[in-house]
Amino acid sequence: MNSAELFQNILKKKSFLCVGLDTEPEKLPACLAGAEDPVFEFNRQIIDATNNYTVAYKPNFAFYECRGQKGLASLERTVKYIKEKHPDIFVIADAKRGDIGNTSRMYAKAVFGEMPFDAVTVAPYMGEDSVTPFLTYPGKWAIVLALTSNKGADDFQYHTDNGRRLFESVLAVSQQWGNTDNMMYVVGATRAEMLADIRRIVPDHFLLVPGVGAQGGSLAEVAKYGMNSKCGLLINSSRGIIFADNTEKFASVAGEKAREMQEEMAQHLKQKFLG
Amino acid sequence: MNSAELFQNILKKKSFLCVGLDTEPEKLPACLAGAEDPVFEFNRQIIDATNNYTVAYKPNFAFYECRGQKGLASLERTVKYIKEKHPDIFVIADAKRGDIGNTSRMYAKAVFGEMPFDAVTVAPYMGEDSVTPFLTYPGKWAIVLALTSNKGADDFQYHTDNGRRLFESVLAVSQQWGNTDNMMYVVGATRAEMLADIRRIVPDHFLLVPGVGAQGGSLAEVAKYGMNSKCGLLINSSRGIIFADNTEKFASVAGEKAREMQEEMAQHLKQKFLG
Repeated sequence: MNSAELFQNILKKKSFLCVGLDTEPEKLPACLAGAEDPVFEFNRQIIDATNNYTVAYKPNFAFYECRGQKGLASLERTVKYIKEKHPDIFVIADAKRGDIGNTSRMYAKAVFGEMPFDAVTVAPYMGEDSVTPFLTYPGKWAIVLALTSNKGADDFQYHTDNGRRLFESVLAVSQQWGNTDNMMYVVGATRAEMLADIRRIVPDHFLLVPGVGAQGGSLAEVAKYGMNSKCGLLINSSRGIIFADNTEKFASVAGEKAREMQEEMAQHLKQKFLG
Repeated sequence: MNSAELFQNILKKKSFLCVGLDTEPEKLPACLAGAEDPVFEFNRQIIDATNNYTVAYKPNFAFYECRGQKGLASLERTVKYIKEKHPDIFVIADAKRGDIGNTSRMYAKAVFGEMPFDAVTVAPYMGEDSVTPFLTYPGKWAIVLALTSNKGADDFQYHTDNGRRLFESVLAVSQQWGNTDNMMYVVGATRAEMLADIRRIVPDHFLLVPGVGAQGGSLAEVAKYGMNSKCGLLINSSRGIIFADNTEKFASVAGEKAREMQEEMAQHLKQKFLG
């Protein structure tokens, strides 16, 4: 999928929502206890209830890897289910990978060869050869960590060399490795005030923005400072949608929460593109 | 395992070698084609042939994840085989993990709860809460990337704030999160001249040093600049040992290569601790 197709999907669905499938086994509703694969069954029902309101899903690998081979089976079933049922939905492997070149090639094979993900999040610390192996698959994307939503972002991401903060160096240097059709950046919603600075460096790239909802970021602020002429935003919400309810109504409540976010997003899209 | 026990094993075996199990499926010797699990069978024979000369093994997750669930099965069998046969050997999950706090907790559960690894490599970009969840398991370690052995290390790791390079900030800041019994650092052998600077910041921590052999680093240089009063080094070699031969003699040749490195290491240990 290229950026034009992604923008078309955003306009069609009036949404730039990404639903994070951080499916923590301990948090599953009791009603799923008897299912053969409760994690997949949870995801399937969440996907069925939310797919009209979202343009992307983002399973976070940690929540699957913590169950070993069984967890990986649930993850594989989930990504295949999404791509079979909804081939136009963008599916992100939130795996934060990154290693020396010949190793990153194997990680790329895992998410793009072995599984049908459209994109993978990558950590920039090891530099160019740790990222470029993910850029060689046509239609696939690397999403590079720039400024993250957590408290620990303060430890190193603001390290300032000659007036340039580390996250700004990551944006400036890494955009030379790929283009706006195979690279995005992670920018946390809790740092919305930084989005104006970030847009000066990467005006045209899509940004994946976690941290709206449970982590406290504001959708309106992100849209105000981060939206570009082709939307350029995927805003992720995980816990605020998928774990909004813990009863047998969990899926319909998740669908409701996703629809609420979609409606707010539709307003921002209308102001920008139809206003 | 704590640092004193690791140092005891080093003195006992006269070795600070770590054998990297970067078991790339395409590089397996043809003689293993009929095995039920060729990757595990390769690892098993390598482990049987090298365990007398090494104090650590380091499977790199990418080379297993690229085969999906089957790869994860080979990985789990490998780490369990090592810990059952050789409980005193330190086993490192080379996975370069790191995410926000509640996610890193799940990654820690994957490598320390689901699998019996002693340590995991972690990327520092996301800061404190991305690393500390790995430090809460007694006897287990986080090994933080500081200065890596690849070309891309030049892109961001030398980013200099107030005279302090990023890798130096990582060392200085992160050592406050743990101690010399639960944290190590990755320092590439291709940057051996930096080891003196690094030892000024972390005199007492163990360093995991990849890049000797295939990547061009020198064991003598690393020992000269990096060894401390309790050795403080684990030097990794992967391809130079495990893929030294591609015939049915692959395991005995790997054992021979590991023995050569162990003998060179014994000389350095003798000079330092018995000289």
